[in-house]
Amino acid sequence: MRAPVEAVWTRRYLGGGLEVAEDVLAAEEPLEIRLGHGPLEDRRETRLSVTMRTPGNDEELALGFLFTEGIIHGREDVLRVVHCEDVKEEERGNVVRAELHPSVEVDPSRWQRSFYMSSSCGVCGKSSIDAVRAQGLRPLTPFGAVDPEVITALPERMRNVQTVFRHTGGIHAAALFDRQGSLLILREGVGRHNAVDKVVGAMLMADAPGRAEGPQLPPASDRMLLVSGRAGFELVQKCAMAGIPLMAALGAPSSLAVRLARETGLTLVGFLSEDRFNVYSGGS
Amino acid sequence: MRAPVEAVWTRRYLGGGLEVAEDVLAAEEPLEIRLGHGPLEDRRETRLSVTMRTPGNDEELALGFLFTEGIIHGREDVLRVVHCEDVKEEERGNVVRAELHPSVEVDPSRWQRSFYMSSSCGVCGKSSIDAVRAQGLRPLTPFGAVDPEVITALPERMRNVQTVFRHTGGIHAAALFDRQGSLLILREGVGRHNAVDKVVGAMLMADAPGRAEGPQLPPASDRMLLVSGRAGFELVQKCAMAGIPLMAALGAPSSLAVRLARETGLTLVGFLSEDRFNVYSGGS
Repeated sequence: MRAPVEAVWTRRYLGGGLEVAEDVLAAEEPLEIRLGHGPLEDRRETRLSVTMRTPGNDEELALGFLFTEGIIHGREDVLRVVHCEDVKEEERGNVVRAELHPSVEVDPSRWQRSFYMSSSCGVCGKSSIDAVRAQGLRPLTPFGAVDPEVITALPERMRNVQTVFRHTGGIHAAALFDRQGSLLILREGVGRHNAVDKVVGAMLMADAPGRAEGPQLPPASDRMLLVSGRAGFELVQKCAMAGIPLMAALGAPSSLAVRLARETGLTLVGFLSEDRFNVYSGGS
Repeated sequence: MRAPVEAVWTRRYLGGGLEVAEDVLAAEEPLEIRLGHGPLEDRRETRLSVTMRTPGNDEELALGFLFTEGIIHGREDVLRVVHCEDVKEEERGNVVRAELHPSVEVDPSRWQRSFYMSSSCGVCGKSSIDAVRAQGLRPLTPFGAVDPEVITALPERMRNVQTVFRHTGGIHAAALFDRQGSLLILREGVGRHNAVDKVVGAMLMADAPGRAEGPQLPPASDRMLLVSGRAGFELVQKCAMAGIPLMAALGAPSSLAVRLARETGLTLVGFLSEDRFNVYSGGS
């Protein structure tokens, strides 16, 4: 198990001279996601992706990544996610393998296309949106009216439990709330995408059929996702793929993020602070 | 020519009710970079990457990307960068082709490895750093002592000329300064990597041998790069590949970014504001 933070020596300037001090940084390490797939008698392994992430919640990160990229369609498609032991000592903890259910059919050539956005699907805003649709986007149940008092209370609730950020200042967060603004899941990471994937993975695990223990989540139509940074295209994509009907960002959305939100029926809130926000899509 | 900003209608909450207002967002569009390479009698085209970027300075972005990824080693390796005309109407302005000099040898299979960080090169901090070295990192001339008065003045100088940010709030910036803190080049974009690549591309164009017009840049050892966000591993990688000996970030560095900076002799400044900063590597 690798640590999410790392202490380093630094020299700090606070107006006087440079003074030696200790600082705690967000850890950043590569994570390789491998996929075990195919029938049991002819099992294959595909190396899917390497992403720079803050260690911790690797199982959730892998599940969320597979789901928001359209490779799996639910928790039940994955038998288990394990850290690989057949790797070099220094790589231990940085390689996971997700074992797909033998009935799940996968097409590695299709992922290649969607991850690297081959030009065969075009290079314009419309084709980017079409590519998200082709990944298996399901219709969202519209969130409906946005309650300003609930929305403006979210940032402080997220900050209150952002432990790694408090220590390092150097990390993104994503948080799942219910319609009343109660915090359900919070995850952090050096990458915005990874923080969202971890939340989605945790959500899938909580939603898994037959799961008896742990907190129950409200129906998908009553969920809201808050992200600490800006709302770019790929974050809106992940939120829509996860079936969460409202996404709020502390920062600005991009033009293409707004277009995707409008086309998918996602309610998109930007520039959220304790006393103001903008609604770019839906929410009426 | 696509625009770097886009106006949209939004509904704004400022404490009263939701009121309709117009907002200007940072544009986000895919850019495909193609490479023309090989001898003149047997010219080949390779589709290299698709990145989400804010339109503008596409030539610089392509040049900077090729350079910081170790595919070219100087401006002279590229004959020209042009927007492709042989694309669909809606893709026009989103596809560029960089024509390499016929003498430049390229190995597409190697890029595949470095972009997607194939596990053949290992999945740990050390192997990530080794991969940067293998891309052709040249030794940096150490920057030497950091002058607090010069460093703390940089953020305001960058903000003063950040035009897209002023209009949209939703964009990253990267700026090149000389040793005295004079701003040389500023570029913006929805992606932090893209803003840095644009600066590096502009730098290469200014440094090109035989170039008579335009501002002259100081020697590489007198340059500093400021980035508006956090200092992650990949940004430090790009700065070191570009031969810039000092990188400062308004946000926090990650653990692996600090390790890479220390191993390459890059001076790394984090948490920079008008009255404080930390030096994580070099600078003495």
